Amino acid sequence: MAQEKATAGARMSELKLPSRSEDFSEWYNQLVLRAELADYAPVRGCMIVRPYGWALWENIQQALDRRFKATGHVNAAFPLLIPRSFIEKEKSHVAGFSPELAVVTIGGGEKLEEPLVVRPTSETIIGHAYAKWIQSYRDLPVLINQWNSVVRWELRTKLFLRTLEFFWQEGHTAHATLEEAEAETQQMLGIYADFAEKEAAIPVIPGRKSESERFAGADQTYSIEAMMGDGKALQSGTSHNLGQNFAKAFEIRYLDKNGVLQYCWTTSWGLSTRFIGAIIMVHGDDQGLILPPRLAPFQVVLVPIFKNEEEKAAVMERVGKLRQELLAADLRVKTDEREGFSPGYKFNDWEMRGVPLRIEIGPKDVAKGTVVFARRDKPGKEGKSFVSQQGLAVSVAKALEEIQAALYQRALAFRNANTHKPGDYAEFKVAVEKGFSISFWCGNSQCEEQIKAETKATMRCIPLEQSGGQGKCICCGQPAKEKALFGKAY
Amino acid sequence: MAQEKATAGARMSELKLPSRSEDFSEWYNQLVLRAELADYAPVRGCMIVRPYGWALWENIQQALDRRFKATGHVNAAFPLLIPRSFIEKEKSHVAGFSPELAVVTIGGGEKLEEPLVVRPTSETIIGHAYAKWIQSYRDLPVLINQWNSVVRWELRTKLFLRTLEFFWQEGHTAHATLEEAEAETQQMLGIYADFAEKEAAIPVIPGRKSESERFAGADQTYSIEAMMGDGKALQSGTSHNLGQNFAKAFEIRYLDKNGVLQYCWTTSWGLSTRFIGAIIMVHGDDQGLILPPRLAPFQVVLVPIFKNEEEKAAVMERVGKLRQELLAADLRVKTDEREGFSPGYKFNDWEMRGVPLRIEIGPKDVAKGTVVFARRDKPGKEGKSFVSQQGLAVSVAKALEEIQAALYQRALAFRNANTHKPGDYAEFKVAVEKGFSISFWCGNSQCEEQIKAETKATMRCIPLEQSGGQGKCICCGQPAKEKALFGKAY
Repeated sequence: MAQEKATAGARMSELKLPSRSEDFSEWYNQLVLRAELADYAPVRGCMIVRPYGWALWENIQQALDRRFKATGHVNAAFPLLIPRSFIEKEKSHVAGFSPELAVVTIGGGEKLEEPLVVRPTSETIIGHAYAKWIQSYRDLPVLINQWNSVVRWELRTKLFLRTLEFFWQEGHTAHATLEEAEAETQQMLGIYADFAEKEAAIPVIPGRKSESERFAGADQTYSIEAMMGDGKALQSGTSHNLGQNFAKAFEIRYLDKNGVLQYCWTTSWGLSTRFIGAIIMVHGDDQGLILPPRLAPFQVVLVPIFKNEEEKAAVMERVGKLRQELLAADLRVKTDEREGFSPGYKFNDWEMRGVPLRIEIGPKDVAKGTVVFARRDKPGKEGKSFVSQQGLAVSVAKALEEIQAALYQRALAFRNANTHKPGDYAEFKVAVEKGFSISFWCGNSQCEEQIKAETKATMRCIPLEQSGGQGKCICCGQPAKEKALFGKAY
Repeated sequence: MAQEKATAGARMSELKLPSRSEDFSEWYNQLVLRAELADYAPVRGCMIVRPYGWALWENIQQALDRRFKATGHVNAAFPLLIPRSFIEKEKSHVAGFSPELAVVTIGGGEKLEEPLVVRPTSETIIGHAYAKWIQSYRDLPVLINQWNSVVRWELRTKLFLRTLEFFWQEGHTAHATLEEAEAETQQMLGIYADFAEKEAAIPVIPGRKSESERFAGADQTYSIEAMMGDGKALQSGTSHNLGQNFAKAFEIRYLDKNGVLQYCWTTSWGLSTRFIGAIIMVHGDDQGLILPPRLAPFQVVLVPIFKNEEEKAAVMERVGKLRQELLAADLRVKTDEREGFSPGYKFNDWEMRGVPLRIEIGPKDVAKGTVVFARRDKPGKEGKSFVSQQGLAVSVAKALEEIQAALYQRALAFRNANTHKPGDYAEFKVAVEKGFSISFWCGNSQCEEQIKAETKATMRCIPLEQSGGQGKCICCGQPAKEKALFGKAY
């Protein structure tokens, strides 16, 4: 019966995923569960990030944290529980977040005098602390980040993309001038873009949000926008210039060099576990995940192949030796030593889990001093090659770099092929059906609303990179100075 | 006025701390604030861990996480919100935690059908997930850890030592047999002890808790106990063998090799930001913190000394060069470039913040090719020495090792000097007034209660290391087989 159980498990896992092209949404849902990235929690809309998913998040954290620290930021931890009255101090903030709050009304068995909010974001409680800590221009800038989770009472949820609780980092900085705050806001947007492209192999469009899409309490919101495998947009990181809104609401002030009391200028910026959704939807295929080598929990999986105990001994001895060489080169390696599973089952399983490079080793390979490389990004024979065991770590590192570059190029080519520059509103409607549109926009929110109502596409951002010139708004035909990115979005 | 402000700040920071020997508690409270390790949050009993404190916690996290991963554990993230009914499924668990819960009753503006609890610990929600994930003996053991914060509605709070929300790691494992679960429980206790002694330079006594001090829902609780600078005990990490209590409450079962359905055996273990309190109270002195080099956010602070621009240029050039050498050797280095503060002020400031090694460099040092080392653990001239700039990174690494070892030896000597083996109950009462007592105990909770009532000392643990033999209970005189550690505790 135990054997039956294991076989049943194996069969379950071998079941074909829904086809990515036929049912992208269901392909996504099932893949997240099958690859054991995440699972549903008993509370509606909450998620469990399972070890494989969390290892991916830890790699994302390290890649970002390195960049944050290199630009002078430090980490800290602010409380989870925020007095309800704090949320109400900044007018737009309360309007934006009130409908989404989880509220603690009972503590230690007693009704609380003032209800506490489980943080939906931390501008308010951090503003309160900054007001206390910042006295003089000497104390500025304050550059703090925190890694935590936040709770927003979302109604329609989907693992990683939109959950009641999600994991993220939120940076909060305070500056002496508007210029410095704006430079910080854009620096962090640049860091997100650099991270997305270099680490996750995801091309992104950095740009400015329209007023209607701004963070509640921000003067400006910037985002990076990525195209998913179904042509839809995913906002993958945001950076906000909060002006003096929170400084005024929380009295964050400093004495300038002339001894005059001034309000600070603050920013905030965040990137969340939603980004894991982007990695899945940009790179994955019908076989499952394809993880970018720089972020993959396992960059390489070693699959030993043998038919009897004698072969097993020879193969496992060599696999052990090669594994040590790869680990010594700081590669993240998994050896699949599971018993009772065929090599074919293991191949499918690791393909589904998106390990970038598989190395197969059988008795003939041991004899010849070779191994077989199977690249996850090139299915079938095309991705297979015989490689010498000599200098294996160097060959693996090279293959991983090639895979990383190939994933980026493929995603970029797909985005380019699905990004259009419509000449008129009719063409625009066709363009946003299956991808992005870049076109002049008058900046008027009425056009934005009309487009949304008629096409379901939203203004993703006004790309920082503009080709210049002037033109006519794609919707109303009025003169326009900037081109905007439109698309349907998650 | 700005200058006045800065000077005022300087003076504030130069104010003497309360004397550690005269008012240990107030010395602790003020030191935590002054050294900017933590601050009070607007919600009663909650804390903000400031960047300097969080950097210390990050180093603790790394030192532990390395040990967890080396023993096969993986990280994951389970939700913050737990259905109220989950807490009620395990009888002792609900009794222990019910009075301490923070309860969310409103979500998204509406009253929830079932209230949600902000996790006080995660045995229940993880038990629920394990029941779903574990099918067969092939799935075991499951070895998962998570880094997060939990909320317990404590009434008397103190920064780091007892706060409503605190930061920690909680490990949760499931096994096929009691023996494996017990081995895991003790392995993790051993890891905590190894971490405390090797990384934090804190000698600890690992042992078993009495029934009254067990975790709510555990069959056995083990802890590491450390002696603080005032002779009191601090429970610094705990490891629980949960038997089949949670497995039965949540139906965590597996098919064994014979195809028979069995309940799993589970464990949990945690170490929290409370440990930062231990570091402060074990090593600190009247001047402030003394951080163990292996965990200190900055292991070395470079303080340049000069009187004019010419001297400044020469000194800063050399400081910059030496700093690069130290960074290249993976040392954590801070250069104090603050203007408008005297070297003496900087010396005091970094002493208060507990940086293990200060390096002073003035114009004469530049000329002679030397620097001055000032060891934080040896105040005054005793800790000062001239050191060549040649091979500085090696000299620094050696000094840090010496400081690390000296801190441990000093803490051990203090604990030994304040640990007594009383011959009778009268001597026992004297011993626990100012330190630890190790004596035979009959194991009866009546004696435990009587001792607590009469001396305020509690049974800290039954040390794993026993001298053997038999004796008489220090309280009731009845025959006893084991020696127990008693002391007043935080």
